[in-house]
Amino acid sequence: MQNFVYHNPTKIIFGAGTIDKIGEITSPVAKKVLYLYGKGSIKKNGIYEKTTVSLRKAGVQFVEYGGVKANPLLSHVRAGIELVRKEKVDAIVAVGGGSVIDEGKAIAAGVTASNDVWKFYDGSGVEVKSALPIFTVLTMSATGTEMNGGTVITNEETKQKIGIMSPFLYPVASILDPTALFSVPPDQTAYGAVDAITHLLESYFTKSESYVPIQDRFAEGIIKTITEITATMQAKPNDLDARSTFMWAATLAWNGLAPSGVGSWSAPNHLIGHSMSALYDTPHGASLSIALSGWLPWYAEQSERNANQVIQFGKAVFGVSSVDETINRFREWFHSVKSPTTLSEIGVDDSGLIKIAENIEENAPLWGLPAYTANFCESILRRCE
Amino acid sequence: MQNFVYHNPTKIIFGAGTIDKIGEITSPVAKKVLYLYGKGSIKKNGIYEKTTVSLRKAGVQFVEYGGVKANPLLSHVRAGIELVRKEKVDAIVAVGGGSVIDEGKAIAAGVTASNDVWKFYDGSGVEVKSALPIFTVLTMSATGTEMNGGTVITNEETKQKIGIMSPFLYPVASILDPTALFSVPPDQTAYGAVDAITHLLESYFTKSESYVPIQDRFAEGIIKTITEITATMQAKPNDLDARSTFMWAATLAWNGLAPSGVGSWSAPNHLIGHSMSALYDTPHGASLSIALSGWLPWYAEQSERNANQVIQFGKAVFGVSSVDETINRFREWFHSVKSPTTLSEIGVDDSGLIKIAENIEENAPLWGLPAYTANFCESILRRCE
Repeated sequence: MQNFVYHNPTKIIFGAGTIDKIGEITSPVAKKVLYLYGKGSIKKNGIYEKTTVSLRKAGVQFVEYGGVKANPLLSHVRAGIELVRKEKVDAIVAVGGGSVIDEGKAIAAGVTASNDVWKFYDGSGVEVKSALPIFTVLTMSATGTEMNGGTVITNEETKQKIGIMSPFLYPVASILDPTALFSVPPDQTAYGAVDAITHLLESYFTKSESYVPIQDRFAEGIIKTITEITATMQAKPNDLDARSTFMWAATLAWNGLAPSGVGSWSAPNHLIGHSMSALYDTPHGASLSIALSGWLPWYAEQSERNANQVIQFGKAVFGVSSVDETINRFREWFHSVKSPTTLSEIGVDDSGLIKIAENIEENAPLWGLPAYTANFCESILRRCE
Repeated sequence: MQNFVYHNPTKIIFGAGTIDKIGEITSPVAKKVLYLYGKGSIKKNGIYEKTTVSLRKAGVQFVEYGGVKANPLLSHVRAGIELVRKEKVDAIVAVGGGSVIDEGKAIAAGVTASNDVWKFYDGSGVEVKSALPIFTVLTMSATGTEMNGGTVITNEETKQKIGIMSPFLYPVASILDPTALFSVPPDQTAYGAVDAITHLLESYFTKSESYVPIQDRFAEGIIKTITEITATMQAKPNDLDARSTFMWAATLAWNGLAPSGVGSWSAPNHLIGHSMSALYDTPHGASLSIALSGWLPWYAEQSERNANQVIQFGKAVFGVSSVDETINRFREWFHSVKSPTTLSEIGVDDSGLIKIAENIEENAPLWGLPAYTANFCESILRRCE
């Protein structure tokens, strides 16, 4: 194992019926909050009602700011920062999925900064030094942002989707009520599952240590569990046990535990996927199953060490014992939950493939992956099946 | 899964060569600390030197207080509280194993309280409301106290060894340097391994939910890893990878993650073991392998659900598929690392067995286990092999 620092101060309040605790957890810290949300589905499924009643009951004023996109946009972040400055709020309450929370973090960091918020993202080296306190009510599990310091924003002008991490961007507290997931449709359910699995696989495969049994088993256990329950969530959206299990699995998948002690690692599948999303607004999870479908067979061929890792993964999760079987079973699982494994499934043709490869090359240095050139990425994407 | 709250704010600084960071992590919080340690082995293995130099370099004054026992004693805690009040220190720096850290927590809580510190432990319902900040340098892995809010103290007058948990007793930061474990002798290495395994097994078996796959796999992965590496640590005390893996495993085993979402649970093996330690000063881990050797066969017989849990455990950890094989393999593993499975191995005869059973009955209500009467515990202890 390698040296590491693990520090995750986010408080998790987990379980059915916990949504209306948002008032009592926010009120000790804030008198007035920005109430951030997305396209308004929370006004249909009762979550808006429950959370706003809870805030009012606790004496917390709130300024509403909706309209966060699935890939949250820089322009909307900037407008949010203006609003927060004007309204002088003390904290952010983000009610939604990963996008809403990520935008909440961007606003929280941008408000207290003298620089434009994009400077935190654009690779110029400007670091977040402070942020407003962030509270979240999670309505779609996938990105893990409810229990980490990460935030991903899309700059629609430069066509860049870039993520950063900061110790100042851990939510103070996050409410994880699995009943909020009952209204997540089958496609988003699959994409969330793929996202969580990919979070674990990035460090599982790319880590500098070859084999870290305690960490490998942690990842394998969560991935196996997710592959077992995703179809259940799609067939029975109100299955509390499956939704609960997934909600916790997705949080554990990207809260800093999995890569602890594995040495240096990278996130090539996220790099590849982000370019698809930036250019074609591809849902994050869908972009990741496509990326993995091309990347994993390439990766397994690079060394015996890599092949052994893939076999270890296949054995632990699918009970198979070769690279080919592992890749086949993994692609079959993606198909079974209807997450795409090829660009053609998302309507991207050959010229689009080239554009994605070129976009990856542009962003690759920011991700510490300068070897991901357009030519190389084209070859990866052509392996998707 | 059941509702839960998970909040673990302790910062972990992990890895070889991290011991001398104690000064820099302490100095932002404290100008003067209580430097707490045990029998003085840190003065032989260089840890005392490294930590005190680091504190001095960071400008942190310290008052030394050594002599913490393996089962830390209330009288020594009380004297520590007096010393801290007299010296007006801002924080506790506990350099040692679980005992030293647990005593550090007791002192930290007792100093700021108007009641006698034992009131927090004796079941009278007095709760910790505040505590001095606690920093730790871990020199023996086992109890998990470096990343939880627990503390166990032995009252030598009443012959009670009792543990409590409080959100105020999480260390601010803990340094986990696996090279500190190089000097842990084979017997203590085994006891630490048994302790960590038992921490996971308490909630694994006794939880109110029958099967929580994500949590079960978390526990199974850690236990399997510990069973694989313990003999290596005993044969090659300076094996950095084995020591690192174990150090992190033991912390993960009792930091609140394992029982998250599993519903209510209890710690019967700890209850049984604590009575052995209170009466015969049995090392904690040794008492737990004896307890499990008697408790597990009884547990498996109580219901099909229990038997299935034991089989699931045996399959995941030892690759066997029956209750008997699981218990045999588990006892064999205890023997292989030289942790006892019978009272006679620790020199306790039949009259001692009865005394232990009676002591358990006295403490059982405090542990929420009133069914653990002297008669019942006698029958459990007679199953040890």
